[in-house]
Amino acid sequence: MTDASANAHPSRRDMLLAAGGLSLLAAATTATAQVPFEPPVPPTGEKKRLGMVLFDGFQLLDVFGPLEMFSHVRDRVEIVLIAQKAGPVKSAAGPVTLADFGFADAPKLDIVMIPGGGGTRREVNNADFVAGFRALAQATPQVVAICTGSAVLARTGLIDGVRATTNKMSWKWATGQGAKVLWVPRARWVEDGKFISSSGISAGTDMALALIARLYGKDMAQWVANRAEYRWHDDPADDPFARINGLVD
Amino acid sequence: MTDASANAHPSRRDMLLAAGGLSLLAAATTATAQVPFEPPVPPTGEKKRLGMVLFDGFQLLDVFGPLEMFSHVRDRVEIVLIAQKAGPVKSAAGPVTLADFGFADAPKLDIVMIPGGGGTRREVNNADFVAGFRALAQATPQVVAICTGSAVLARTGLIDGVRATTNKMSWKWATGQGAKVLWVPRARWVEDGKFISSSGISAGTDMALALIARLYGKDMAQWVANRAEYRWHDDPADDPFARINGLVD
Repeated sequence: MTDASANAHPSRRDMLLAAGGLSLLAAATTATAQVPFEPPVPPTGEKKRLGMVLFDGFQLLDVFGPLEMFSHVRDRVEIVLIAQKAGPVKSAAGPVTLADFGFADAPKLDIVMIPGGGGTRREVNNADFVAGFRALAQATPQVVAICTGSAVLARTGLIDGVRATTNKMSWKWATGQGAKVLWVPRARWVEDGKFISSSGISAGTDMALALIARLYGKDMAQWVANRAEYRWHDDPADDPFARINGLVD
Repeated sequence: MTDASANAHPSRRDMLLAAGGLSLLAAATTATAQVPFEPPVPPTGEKKRLGMVLFDGFQLLDVFGPLEMFSHVRDRVEIVLIAQKAGPVKSAAGPVTLADFGFADAPKLDIVMIPGGGGTRREVNNADFVAGFRALAQATPQVVAICTGSAVLARTGLIDGVRATTNKMSWKWATGQGAKVLWVPRARWVEDGKFISSSGISAGTDMALALIARLYGKDMAQWVANRAEYRWHDDPADDPFARINGLVD
């Protein structure tokens, strides 16, 4: 939550108005325009339910970067956390988050997201987890994989023949989980049909803003980024980490 | 966790080696150098304990952006979560995280961090919370405030006469919590003595990398950023959000 009245100093606009400097006002307005408290174009339509899937060893920022961005879509997105069973789930870094639902009792979702993290190494071989996530992904109109979450999504078979990307440091292992997936080595994120997948960790945050732009308009996404004081990298092809990790020249 | 063996495609280096193209190898090595699995300069010294303070209504990315970055400092940083009382703490966005300790039984820390979020509006007027956090901050050699966490830190009185910054949208309210603090309107983050404070939400992640650079060297910070596929904005004076929010021309 942030204040609408956000200025301890008189703004340049206020000073110009006080001085009657109306001829300079148009130019000054751009320089001092504040991020408004409510979005310039309020989100419309049905409220959406976003389910983030957790498992022991999930990567913190894979989960909480995208959720941070969606949380700014004012009162239009309900966030729920889902794991194989409801209850405490330990991240790769240590902190424990509570899953609200298990796969068996998860509510109907509009968007489902799966993060990466060391725990994916175990979950790709956990048939119950893969089946539970597969059912959720089949029933949900928008499926999002972050980082090595793409490896788990690949194991469901749902993205055979679909374009996708994943973490650039774990490329060999992750892409090995889906021989029929059309893996894209240089991409911050990839959209193909109802699936979106992002590259490693921080890429999920840029992708989340791209999804907000598609659902609510680009002005809404930029407003969210400004509220979060986040510099959004909005070009999915701009991926320096493919080169840093030797996947492309 | 990411793979050390991260390349599904033969690297340019491998192809050059196979072709015996040794004269081109030096140039090619730079272009295809991978992020190594272990940091080029391993962290040394005592293991550090980082305590993140939680309260109902904390901002997700304020907490988990910095913790994500510190979690990559291999086996040298222990992360603990501390609240007024141990147990579940609900974020502003909804997800619940478990605090490991209450203020009364918190272990000795090397670094303490306090995030922002809507809950700061309540906690600045919660004398027990302010006193508990004050005692923790006094006993800890490195104190870090993220976003409107600076407002709570200001209420302790510990940063009277100290340079600090805070969220740019909530500037008026947050700076109003500490009339004697030397507030800096244009700064991604500000370091002064044992205190570091960052601007809104995402700025905490850039600041965390700056603290990693101070503690473990800039190469370590850049290695962490590359592992997290994060574009680190490493200049504390580079703050476009001060202008977007009308605090500076």
